[in-house]
Amino acid sequence: MTSLDELAGTARAGTLYGIGVGPGDVRYLTLRAAGLVRAVDVVAFFAKRGQVGNARRIVAPLMKDGQAEARLEYPVTDEIPAEHPDYQSRIAGFYRASAESLAALLHEGKSVGLIAEGDPFFYGSFMHMWRRLASGFPVEVVPGVTGMSGCWTRANLPMTWGNDTLSVLPGTLAEDMLVERLQRTDAAVVMKVGKNLAKVRRAVERAGLLSRAVYVERGTMQDERIVPLADCDAPRGAYFAMVLIPGEGRRL
Amino acid sequence: MTSLDELAGTARAGTLYGIGVGPGDVRYLTLRAAGLVRAVDVVAFFAKRGQVGNARRIVAPLMKDGQAEARLEYPVTDEIPAEHPDYQSRIAGFYRASAESLAALLHEGKSVGLIAEGDPFFYGSFMHMWRRLASGFPVEVVPGVTGMSGCWTRANLPMTWGNDTLSVLPGTLAEDMLVERLQRTDAAVVMKVGKNLAKVRRAVERAGLLSRAVYVERGTMQDERIVPLADCDAPRGAYFAMVLIPGEGRRL
Repeated sequence: MTSLDELAGTARAGTLYGIGVGPGDVRYLTLRAAGLVRAVDVVAFFAKRGQVGNARRIVAPLMKDGQAEARLEYPVTDEIPAEHPDYQSRIAGFYRASAESLAALLHEGKSVGLIAEGDPFFYGSFMHMWRRLASGFPVEVVPGVTGMSGCWTRANLPMTWGNDTLSVLPGTLAEDMLVERLQRTDAAVVMKVGKNLAKVRRAVERAGLLSRAVYVERGTMQDERIVPLADCDAPRGAYFAMVLIPGEGRRL
Repeated sequence: MTSLDELAGTARAGTLYGIGVGPGDVRYLTLRAAGLVRAVDVVAFFAKRGQVGNARRIVAPLMKDGQAEARLEYPVTDEIPAEHPDYQSRIAGFYRASAESLAALLHEGKSVGLIAEGDPFFYGSFMHMWRRLASGFPVEVVPGVTGMSGCWTRANLPMTWGNDTLSVLPGTLAEDMLVERLQRTDAAVVMKVGKNLAKVRRAVERAGLLSRAVYVERGTMQDERIVPLADCDAPRGAYFAMVLIPGEGRRL
């Protein structure tokens, strides 16, 4: 029997780690992720202006006293729509500068762990660093429990059975497109519900799925909220909200 | 700073734990999952006849000497097609008997951890126990890193960017249906490729996605194999094989 700390392993100098930290509960970091958070010279993270940063908050119980941190702060979040050219150029510039600052640390021989909510390769900001740095430095990516797994676990919803198909859809899709996609799947997860809650609810209802749909906000975090979508009358939901529609495939 | 063992927590008497053990590498168990594997009175697992059981093999480095186990052995695997009534009745009887044997352990006050590859609520056999036992016993489900996250991590494929949609499709779908679904998504994961490899490859090619598609077998396990789908000419693949088609959404 090996101790958990031994299994978790160590970090190598000059290496970039993309560390999935899971949906919110610190106990849902993997052994490798938890080990790396402690082992790296610098813990890097993205955060919105004026906020702690969600990934940073998740790993707080694991951090060592005085461990170096690199806070990468978005110059803009949702004050400008993501489709706007100003948003895109400012964020692209920010990602470029962030990659440069991480590269400087790596050149000094530091091991750098960029923590990412959920899984780094599933809608993660980490990917914007990875595509700039993976050709120049050794990189290890550590997969994580996704936000959607955390949400369906807490909502007590087995999601996909037998040969069910699952569609993951952003709530930003046009209403008619959402209806069409929902009608052509067995199970569905609608992400980025936030401002799109009223539209998502209408689309789910038009697809005939309202009775099966569950709204989950901040799943596995301290202030999680889980309610039938049919009971959500508010025009908008929380930023970390998703709608889950479980499949009804083969039960044996 | 808290030790990993402390964070992992303990198990309660008479409780059923559905423990996601991730895609294959023992370091990809969560802290809670690893803690529970050690803490429960009985580690239960499904296995095919004559095999160790994949979940059981994953957790081997964590097991305590002499820890009690409950092996639940499928009476049939792929000798009979899953759609055949004989298969369905034999498996249903097996799940019923398995649930009864777990219930007997729980009635004795034992804590029972049923380990599940990937995430317990995502195509997991655990769900068939959950629906029989969750109303009668306290249950805790621990989400896990899915097999698909493990595969796209090892294949170095960031999967979903910006507002990409993701479709998870079983390779058992008819070829025309696969083509249609692949044409209406940005990113896709085709599971259960095994016997369906030739059909899946034809469907991906007809959908115009062959150049982006990657075949991954036993991702994160010792004998993993990752090749462009275009290079897979064999009529069938391994049981634990999937095809990944990454999205091409917004890169900033």
